[in-house]
Amino acid sequence: MSSTRVLTGITTSGTPHLGNYVGAIRPAIVASQSNTTDCFFFMADYHALIKCDDPARIERSRLEIAATWLAAGLDPERVTFYRQSDVPEVTELNWLLTCVTAKGQMNRAHAYKASTDINEAAGEDPDHGVTMGLFCYPILMAADILLFNPHKVPVGRDQIQHIEMARDVAARFNHMFGAGKELFVLPEAHIEEHVATLPGLDGRKMSKSYDNTIPLFEGGSKALKEAIARIVTNSLLPGEPKDPECHLVTIYEAFATPEQAAKFKADLVAGLGWGDAKKQLLELIESQIGPMREKYQALMAHPEQIEELLQIGAQKARAIAAPLLKEVREAVGLRRMNAIPQAKEKAVKIALPMFKQFRLADGQFYFNFSDAHGRLLLESQGFASGKDAGQWIGKLKKEGVTALSNDAPVKLAEGIAQDDVAAALLALNAE
Amino acid sequence: MSSTRVLTGITTSGTPHLGNYVGAIRPAIVASQSNTTDCFFFMADYHALIKCDDPARIERSRLEIAATWLAAGLDPERVTFYRQSDVPEVTELNWLLTCVTAKGQMNRAHAYKASTDINEAAGEDPDHGVTMGLFCYPILMAADILLFNPHKVPVGRDQIQHIEMARDVAARFNHMFGAGKELFVLPEAHIEEHVATLPGLDGRKMSKSYDNTIPLFEGGSKALKEAIARIVTNSLLPGEPKDPECHLVTIYEAFATPEQAAKFKADLVAGLGWGDAKKQLLELIESQIGPMREKYQALMAHPEQIEELLQIGAQKARAIAAPLLKEVREAVGLRRMNAIPQAKEKAVKIALPMFKQFRLADGQFYFNFSDAHGRLLLESQGFASGKDAGQWIGKLKKEGVTALSNDAPVKLAEGIAQDDVAAALLALNAE
Repeated sequence: MSSTRVLTGITTSGTPHLGNYVGAIRPAIVASQSNTTDCFFFMADYHALIKCDDPARIERSRLEIAATWLAAGLDPERVTFYRQSDVPEVTELNWLLTCVTAKGQMNRAHAYKASTDINEAAGEDPDHGVTMGLFCYPILMAADILLFNPHKVPVGRDQIQHIEMARDVAARFNHMFGAGKELFVLPEAHIEEHVATLPGLDGRKMSKSYDNTIPLFEGGSKALKEAIARIVTNSLLPGEPKDPECHLVTIYEAFATPEQAAKFKADLVAGLGWGDAKKQLLELIESQIGPMREKYQALMAHPEQIEELLQIGAQKARAIAAPLLKEVREAVGLRRMNAIPQAKEKAVKIALPMFKQFRLADGQFYFNFSDAHGRLLLESQGFASGKDAGQWIGKLKKEGVTALSNDAPVKLAEGIAQDDVAAALLALNAE
Repeated sequence: MSSTRVLTGITTSGTPHLGNYVGAIRPAIVASQSNTTDCFFFMADYHALIKCDDPARIERSRLEIAATWLAAGLDPERVTFYRQSDVPEVTELNWLLTCVTAKGQMNRAHAYKASTDINEAAGEDPDHGVTMGLFCYPILMAADILLFNPHKVPVGRDQIQHIEMARDVAARFNHMFGAGKELFVLPEAHIEEHVATLPGLDGRKMSKSYDNTIPLFEGGSKALKEAIARIVTNSLLPGEPKDPECHLVTIYEAFATPEQAAKFKADLVAGLGWGDAKKQLLELIESQIGPMREKYQALMAHPEQIEELLQIGAQKARAIAAPLLKEVREAVGLRRMNAIPQAKEKAVKIALPMFKQFRLADGQFYFNFSDAHGRLLLESQGFASGKDAGQWIGKLKKEGVTALSNDAPVKLAEGIAQDDVAAALLALNAE
């Protein structure tokens, strides 16, 4: 049985809270226990350097994050768990990808544009305070991904563009240097549609920026109890029936079986007091988090044990990354001098028009068609399956623009004439 | 005696011509023979990837360039001669520097601005056809330099801005992470004011873009003779007096002693014919280039010998780069997770003095001995077998400096006292 390789990057900034556990850590660990997946988890500490110039915080944060994931049940025997900065192949591939990435594409990256928008609104130079780290990190992210040729990269919606960029650069690299071979797998973004977003103390999404978090391990059961006591409720008294559609119940449900949740709601409707409800919530969470917390504390007391696990993880990761990078180096011409190379006439390499298939958040399959300069020519409507989309690509390649009838599920992009498309399709077929 | 560390990057594109030899290769090799310099030469093949997507050309070019410099007299024993792409520390430092470089500074880089100016003049998007490699390469260049903490970087005027950028990023890094210590030396651009610019066949600067070059080694003495025959002169006949202020004389002077040059000029004034003058020029150049060409051809026939030299060079380079990068990683917070104080103290690993064995082009076996900072302490003569070399290493380890009698096949490196060697041997044995 072949397995799907899944790569997950973990931000190493800040101390995880209960919302991170429910929304990210727990589902990723559950997914990693499947027999059909081959999971890679890495701590993105090269990325952390972009925003953090406090070495002690970088150090502390990596330790806490690693201890948290291990305590929460990540099995380093089953998965490959490593630090990005222990895999030097990452930065080398980063440079090789940098050489083939168009600057125009980076100009359009969301995170960078958000910064320039703020600067422009404030009347500053668009690049005021922007580091090259912020500007270049989508390429580093592409290197993180492509170095392990994963099929799936679970990401939030805000990260879809980055996966698209990784796909683009992979496709370009394959085209330029692959000599017909797929050096890189084109990774797919895997959007979790049903991510549990845990509400915080005040009912808004639990987030450090709202200062409404419940700690995961830090501060022990005492801090957990104190935070739960501060969950905002209404002022109904014990004995009065309560609406079970409240965020305290949502938090309870995140840890409860359906039966436990149903009973909890019924009890509230029947008049369970908020104080008792919070006591039950604390007991429920503590029954699951408590044993992990002990493991967490044991790990935090022995960082050298974590270090050892991470070193083993890095070895596993490099065993995959190094041969791939070797192949990539060969492909671009960084080869050992061991034979006399023939002075071959340079075959002029021409960029080609390109069809690109992708899947959007609505679950449907799309494609578009761009010319050799990356100008968008055609955009498709959504298809129920990737196969349907592929059939339309085949039809266009075969029939040319005659396939573009009025009711075709493919439209000319803005400002594009049919002749442009005809020329690009011809150029593609001539190859 | 303290020496100045000098770092020179060599572009690995194109085949060197006579102008490259006179203007760049010969003076750099002469400078490397000084006793007061510690020279690093590297082939900038990561940079070559920015502009070249033809793997065969990358491969061929690196070979030709390496063979050219070695044939022209670069002594890999004396200098550190390596390929950039054999030192993975370069791309890692590149990322660390990327994180602290302001994007605004890169927007102002000359090479990038030249591209956007051309695009704007043509009514294109300013970043049309601009790759991230072009945009980011001053950072890679800063990494090339700072990784070896050189004092001087010989560059042309067009490169001054890049050295300024490297200084800026070094200063910023020292300030942010140095904790009062200079992690990076601030390099100084060393502008050669008196670079000999060789004229080409038509009297303009010799350059591939003018199609007026005289080959260095390629094509053998036949190609050299044919090129010299095509040097443009006037139509004065033998016997008629000629103006010695002409480019044929300038080329002659680039290879002549002052006495030879004076006689050549006087002969022209006295009526030496152009044909005979060209014959004399060919003989003069051939007397110097001819022996090098033989060495060049021998090296080109055995790429694996060049590869071996480059591997030794990479080891020498990494012996300096790796400890520096380790220090830089520590400084930014990328640290091993060591046992916390109350737990068992982990033994800190210290760089050690090192014996290194290698084989040179003469087929003999050599070794040297460096201290923990990579400073060369001992150099051996050539041995007929690797076993002989190994026995001498064993003797030194066992007997210490007493083994260094006057007739020992091992000598102190320049500026090294016997005490230095004794201390290093002790440190090695203590391990």
